[in-house]
Amino acid sequence: MAIAISATWTAHPGKEDVVRDALAKLVPAARAEPGCQAYVVHQDPERPTVFRFFEIYDDEDALKAHGDSPHFAKYAVGQAAPALADRSHEFTTVLDF
Amino acid sequence: MAIAISATWTAHPGKEDVVRDALAKLVPAARAEPGCQAYVVHQDPERPTVFRFFEIYDDEDALKAHGDSPHFAKYAVGQAAPALADRSHEFTTVLDF
Repeated sequence: MAIAISATWTAHPGKEDVVRDALAKLVPAARAEPGCQAYVVHQDPERPTVFRFFEIYDDEDALKAHGDSPHFAKYAVGQAAPALADRSHEFTTVLDF
Repeated sequence: MAIAISATWTAHPGKEDVVRDALAKLVPAARAEPGCQAYVVHQDPERPTVFRFFEIYDDEDALKAHGDSPHFAKYAVGQAAPALADRSHEFTTVLDF
């Protein structure tokens, strides 16, 4: 069954644009991975420092490929992470209906 | 911008099958709504009473159409709700990347 990630990145106040710029490069590259079924970034407009993610990968291999990708290293780890005060994520299983 | 819903339904223990049966009818009907972009049900396998949802609608009108639909009334309100101990949801805005 496919694996979902629900993640949250909280930017340091004033660093939202750094995160948005990283995401503008990361998101299209992630969606182009063969094992990525969905990559959505969403936000409560009243909490502009908080970026939330809902992602779906085919399986564990696809999830690992995402984490090992050059775009993840460059834009998530290299560009966004230093601008973040907090990061968290959890994994769930997608139910087939 | 599109609207995301992150929702959680917690079934009364032993009522998981009632909820799954309702979802088997609700989910395909919701996905067929013209304003529904995504309707994903996901779960932590270690918490089988907890059903999580990630849904995306085009706009407020599409969200209202979902809540007013006959399938929502029949399967979410009529069938699933009596089997639930708790329901919660929150709205966010999908960011375009």
